[in-house]
Amino acid sequence: MAELNGNLLVAQSGGPTCVINASVAGVITEAGRHECIENIYGGLNGILGILNEEIVDLGDEKRSAVEGLKHTPAAALGTCRYKINFQKKPEQAAKDMDRLFEVFNAHNIRYFFYAGGNDSQDTAHKIHLEAVKRGYDMRVLGVPKTIDNDLPCTDHCPGYGSVVKYNCATVTEVGLDVGSMATDDGSCCIIEVMGRAAGWIAAGTVLAKQGNPANPPHIILLPEIPFDEDAFLARVKETVAAQKYCIVVCGEGLKDKQGEEIGADKTRLDAFGHAVLAGASEKLKEIVQGRLNLKTRTVLLGYAQRAAAHLASQTDSDEAFACGGAAVRAAVEGKSGFMPKIVRLSTNPYRWTIELEDLANIANVEHFIPRDWVSEDGFLPNEKFVEYAAPLIVGEVKVPYINGLPHYVTLDKSKVDKLLPPRA
Amino acid sequence: MAELNGNLLVAQSGGPTCVINASVAGVITEAGRHECIENIYGGLNGILGILNEEIVDLGDEKRSAVEGLKHTPAAALGTCRYKINFQKKPEQAAKDMDRLFEVFNAHNIRYFFYAGGNDSQDTAHKIHLEAVKRGYDMRVLGVPKTIDNDLPCTDHCPGYGSVVKYNCATVTEVGLDVGSMATDDGSCCIIEVMGRAAGWIAAGTVLAKQGNPANPPHIILLPEIPFDEDAFLARVKETVAAQKYCIVVCGEGLKDKQGEEIGADKTRLDAFGHAVLAGASEKLKEIVQGRLNLKTRTVLLGYAQRAAAHLASQTDSDEAFACGGAAVRAAVEGKSGFMPKIVRLSTNPYRWTIELEDLANIANVEHFIPRDWVSEDGFLPNEKFVEYAAPLIVGEVKVPYINGLPHYVTLDKSKVDKLLPPRA
Repeated sequence: MAELNGNLLVAQSGGPTCVINASVAGVITEAGRHECIENIYGGLNGILGILNEEIVDLGDEKRSAVEGLKHTPAAALGTCRYKINFQKKPEQAAKDMDRLFEVFNAHNIRYFFYAGGNDSQDTAHKIHLEAVKRGYDMRVLGVPKTIDNDLPCTDHCPGYGSVVKYNCATVTEVGLDVGSMATDDGSCCIIEVMGRAAGWIAAGTVLAKQGNPANPPHIILLPEIPFDEDAFLARVKETVAAQKYCIVVCGEGLKDKQGEEIGADKTRLDAFGHAVLAGASEKLKEIVQGRLNLKTRTVLLGYAQRAAAHLASQTDSDEAFACGGAAVRAAVEGKSGFMPKIVRLSTNPYRWTIELEDLANIANVEHFIPRDWVSEDGFLPNEKFVEYAAPLIVGEVKVPYINGLPHYVTLDKSKVDKLLPPRA
Repeated sequence: MAELNGNLLVAQSGGPTCVINASVAGVITEAGRHECIENIYGGLNGILGILNEEIVDLGDEKRSAVEGLKHTPAAALGTCRYKINFQKKPEQAAKDMDRLFEVFNAHNIRYFFYAGGNDSQDTAHKIHLEAVKRGYDMRVLGVPKTIDNDLPCTDHCPGYGSVVKYNCATVTEVGLDVGSMATDDGSCCIIEVMGRAAGWIAAGTVLAKQGNPANPPHIILLPEIPFDEDAFLARVKETVAAQKYCIVVCGEGLKDKQGEEIGADKTRLDAFGHAVLAGASEKLKEIVQGRLNLKTRTVLLGYAQRAAAHLASQTDSDEAFACGGAAVRAAVEGKSGFMPKIVRLSTNPYRWTIELEDLANIANVEHFIPRDWVSEDGFLPNEKFVEYAAPLIVGEVKVPYINGLPHYVTLDKSKVDKLLPPRA
């Protein structure tokens, strides 16, 4: 493979995580080791910013800032949910593609890295195919990122271990609180976590049990398993009789037997046309209070769970960083149209490596929890799940504190001069 | 003052905090230094457990467990919201008092410590007065505890610094997340925090700004300041125009101009007869989405915020521990009917000491944020507040981790034999 000289562009897409910046740090750090890569650029707000030629020079960033990206949550370059949709908006999509390649060409972008989840891998795949079609010599790699853990082919996704670690700590702490308040009346607390279609995040909180059935969470409701109200209430009652309290974790996308999301607000759709979810936990609270007359409170972690870098998993951060680096190495070696994936070599001790997966196998495919990783009654992930998830939350990312608060970095983002007329 | 020989009983009451166990550790540690204190007992679930003669021998606990209480959230001895109410239930109250003193007498309790907030200090005060009236020689001290920071006379309350530290970290992290997702449409996130009457907790999140007006939170809605919908929406709009996103923190007890809680569910009352609150943030979300057509999400931290010991303030933990110790020293010196209070000696550098306050001045008095500590428009605490609150979140409690999760202690709670017939 001939050496390809030119500039590198990295961008972030979709919902942020605690460690998507670690992947960018991995890209920057590895890129600095290859002479064929001339400038290291960042695209602001994913392809939306690239369409507007909003490019910054990451080579200008301080070394300490790049290092700090490893513990800084959210998307330091900004992100977007913009999608190039050839099915629904073919004209706009064709226009966008033309514009993207104008921008790539104007800035001699020969290495393009896009960190994101399912939709973003689809975008990366389309850009790769388009580059081939146009004969534009550019190596395109996706970098995996999603708290949802729903990308196929990879053992798990960077971002997942950290959200699970934080949510488990929260379940443990809330459990101690509710348990210590539980007098004879009993009480229930419902903790709603993210997870629209796949229940990986909710399932992950089973690790908070630390192998003790009496520990919270006592019930985990997954979007994959239709909600059975009577069975659920029976289990809550049973738990309160035994423990005096009950901690329930529910995925936001919990569905009834008809497949309707129990907390969906169908009046609003997001940019990808999915129903906006709000309130699975509030709905469950109504049910528990109404039918069991049991004091019930809710916790809605929302964005906090995917941004809680103060309690990120070191394993997760290391893997995210490694994925960024591996993407650059693969590109320099001539690969395009791939995504680095995490391959588990052994669970105990936990060992992993990184291999490449064809983006065609990743884009738009969702990966769900195998049914046999969940108890027959559907209320708790079983030992198979625990064995899988346990290593992913190990290790604590060290975050510096200033004035009692975690100190995160912001990039200088020195702008690269625009070379094109504004986007039409 | 003659030396008083006998047993010590400590109990916890009201909503837990991250550091109420640190106060118990302070009591146990100090009590071990005084020969006049024979056994160190704990009452389970506050006075409710004491009425049932549920007493454990804290002298039997491992040294490491007592040490671990300093970083363990919730109430290790259990807590309750039970109140001896002479106004509303005079017969029950008289019966309860008789029973309490039967228990004290049966177990030769001569030192009684009750850790809690306003209602609990009232209970401690009543027990002190009753002991005097009955001529039962016992020293009763309240130990301050409340995330709400609404006890009078003390500079601040143990528990407050930790909830503020965690909430500030959450605001910072959610702000980075929402900010990084904000494209031209803008977006808003409303973070609901505890605080029924006093807005100390909501106000504390102003520290997340770290002196930078552009940083979140951009608006803080306090229960003390009547909600002005139009002014609020104008401020949200202004903020989104400038920053592309807006982070709002609201106290759960936010009230409209008629004094009605905007999120109150008036169909339910808690044990003290207060309306159960749910959904100030959901209400605000409806308003922002409905009137500004702005994408809005909510975070409801609920119990998580007062139990998040993984991010507790070392200053807070030290002060809580010191209050427990000071209560014991005062009792041994012959004092009864007092509560240790924190007295600030200087702010910069932050120095504090502990003095005693008469429980008569504390019981049932609520302390609110001075109006001149909040900006004229009511949307942000000002420099006076920042100067006050900043030292309280400094320092990070070191929590041990096992398998990637914070490791908290549970007490053995070896039961003391019951000496009385069951409570009638």
